[in-house]
Amino acid sequence: LTARLQGFGTTIFTEMTRLAIQFGAVNLGQGFPNFDGPDFIKEAAIAAIRAGANQYSRMSGLPELNRAIAAHQQRFYDLSYDPDSEVTVYSGATEAICATLQALCDTGDEVVLFEPFYDSYRASVTMAGAVPKVVTLHAPDFAYRPEELEAVITPKTRAILLNTPHNPTGKVFTRSELEHIASLCQRFDLIAITDEVYEHLVYEGSHVPLATLPGMRERTVLISSSGKTFSFTGWKVGHTCAPPALSAAIRCAHQFVTFCTATPFQHALAKAFVADDAFFTGLVAEYRARRDRLCHGLRELGFGVLAPAGAYFVMTDIRPLGYADDVEFCRMLPEQVGVAAIPPSSFYERPANGRHLVRWAFCKTDDVLDEGLRRLQKLP
Amino acid sequence: LTARLQGFGTTIFTEMTRLAIQFGAVNLGQGFPNFDGPDFIKEAAIAAIRAGANQYSRMSGLPELNRAIAAHQQRFYDLSYDPDSEVTVYSGATEAICATLQALCDTGDEVVLFEPFYDSYRASVTMAGAVPKVVTLHAPDFAYRPEELEAVITPKTRAILLNTPHNPTGKVFTRSELEHIASLCQRFDLIAITDEVYEHLVYEGSHVPLATLPGMRERTVLISSSGKTFSFTGWKVGHTCAPPALSAAIRCAHQFVTFCTATPFQHALAKAFVADDAFFTGLVAEYRARRDRLCHGLRELGFGVLAPAGAYFVMTDIRPLGYADDVEFCRMLPEQVGVAAIPPSSFYERPANGRHLVRWAFCKTDDVLDEGLRRLQKLP
Ligand SMILES: CSCCC(=O)C(=O)O
Ligand SMILES: CSCCC(=O)C(=O)O
Repeated sequence: LTARLQGFGTTIFTEMTRLAIQFGAVNLGQGFPNFDGPDFIKEAAIAAIRAGANQYSRMSGLPELNRAIAAHQQRFYDLSYDPDSEVTVYSGATEAICATLQALCDTGDEVVLFEPFYDSYRASVTMAGAVPKVVTLHAPDFAYRPEELEAVITPKTRAILLNTPHNPTGKVFTRSELEHIASLCQRFDLIAITDEVYEHLVYEGSHVPLATLPGMRERTVLISSSGKTFSFTGWKVGHTCAPPALSAAIRCAHQFVTFCTATPFQHALAKAFVADDAFFTGLVAEYRARRDRLCHGLRELGFGVLAPAGAYFVMTDIRPLGYADDVEFCRMLPEQVGVAAIPPSSFYERPANGRHLVRWAFCKTDDVLDEGLRRLQKLP
Repeated sequence: LTARLQGFGTTIFTEMTRLAIQFGAVNLGQGFPNFDGPDFIKEAAIAAIRAGANQYSRMSGLPELNRAIAAHQQRFYDLSYDPDSEVTVYSGATEAICATLQALCDTGDEVVLFEPFYDSYRASVTMAGAVPKVVTLHAPDFAYRPEELEAVITPKTRAILLNTPHNPTGKVFTRSELEHIASLCQRFDLIAITDEVYEHLVYEGSHVPLATLPGMRERTVLISSSGKTFSFTGWKVGHTCAPPALSAAIRCAHQFVTFCTATPFQHALAKAFVADDAFFTGLVAEYRARRDRLCHGLRELGFGVLAPAGAYFVMTDIRPLGYADDVEFCRMLPEQVGVAAIPPSSFYERPANGRHLVRWAFCKTDDVLDEGLRRLQKLP
């Protein structure tokens, strides 16, 4: 293993999924639904397989899918992107992040991350030979301190990577936070990379893509995922929207990272992105009910619940129940209680900042949420 | 675009595919069949989608697929791999190459490549901060000169990347060449990375995985692709077999490059790898007939045909027809003749070595091969 990947080990998702399977636990760990998206999307994938759409697609994405993504950005955010030169499709948002950083970061460049962060960010930054500079989102409300963000920006800063709605905290960045970030990007000529995979899962306020702020479209790489939006995480299809020069650079990396993405699922998702508005409002209503159900149950059990404004995870403070170490707690949980969760300290550069927190996924049907909560009554 | 990706531009596949579509050309360019693999594999994918196998798989691969790949290595090569710790699944062999180099190469390490090479090798080496050291396979027989290989090995050499059966030349490395490469790996403590995606497409001699040579299994990362073997290139599923320590390192990179691979297709390919022997012998018989058909036709037209022993491309010398520049020739072809091919000079570090050659894909049905040949009669 190379120096740059030393210490990364195995993602916490792999470890917790393994424990969940080993002990037959109710899995509230990694963020995948225990249900699938709509049948019409599945049937479109099946029709594509049957029709013989089983060979390489265009490197930048199946034209129909690029067009559908552009139409989606227009419809929801009034953002215009050219499907051919500004929209690119990847084998998941994780690949989009990897290719974006490979394309844009030279050795020694610095990239600003907010901790806690989805763990691939830091690894992708270091694989690109760049250096992560971390700003803390402070519990319990996960606000960042403007002066802490300003303090990490140096002449070597290349980009700010922002995730909103935010995993694992559920934070939805406010317009005034986004305005502050935008002003820094413009003042210091930085690129913004925005991971918006939970864009349609917002329960309080609304999702504002950073690219919609004045002057930001031209310097923003917007990343999203159809796996999260349409509940097909196992199809591994993500995308970026970015101005032509940035898109061309990222495609240069993408073509050598995976080249292209499963063709039948691109056909299916081309139909999904143009789903009617009722699909999207229905989705958020269902998820809001799941969020409320899990938050309520965890609160009853005595956890300090930090109710999320977006995404599909809830963070809880475990100290009220007498626990102090998230990793110990989450390693004990599958065997002793029959539930799996994620210890967020591995999403922090300074793990101590997350030791007292545990993340639970609510992208699950009611029976699973209820059974998880029932089992948690046996917490030692 | 970062310094390390400067000069890589857009892959030649993208450019030639675009021209092929624009001019309605018979596409003998990028290596994908114009037919699909067996229906039973498609039906298995459809069944998996219907059965709800649409969320993330295990990071290292769906257990059934890892087991099927291990069984396949045992059956064909008498190579034993543990499915859980030694087999890993990727979003295509391209991702496997990218992740392997990210995991194993430190900045400044050197990696030996044979030119001509599939263009992602050099890009993946440089994305990892490593330096490609190139040894030429000399036309017309594409042998390498042992002293030229020995001359590029230095104390900084980390790995030799070998592709057999070879794209674009169709060369199948001989046992004595493999023994020479193996002896160098052992003498200088190098890792071998073998791209064997065309392992089942061998028409003369037979495919010998380098890992089967004494002492090599422990230092070889064997890469292959089910897209090529089962004629579903658009499903983007590849794999590696490597000893546990190497596999663990590569997975560390893989988990941050794509995390995992389309689940329904993993289910389907788990069934494919255990297909009976008749499938594999049938496959090679069909491809041999296609090779012979295209080689014969191109010879009749006056090309200098360098008949391939494996893979699904044929290289031709264009000088007998009065042409001198492969790129010019291939840019002219779609518009003027209605056929697309690939100029191999972009697979050379020293493009001059490939200027007089053009690569044609024969993974096409007879009607397409015949129509391509018919159109080529109009060559100006
Ligand atoms: C490949 S894991 C992607 C992120 C996620 O689902 C999680 O944080 O659980
Ligand atoms: C993603 S292109 C893979 C290699 C290939 O098919 C070719 O060389 O044409």
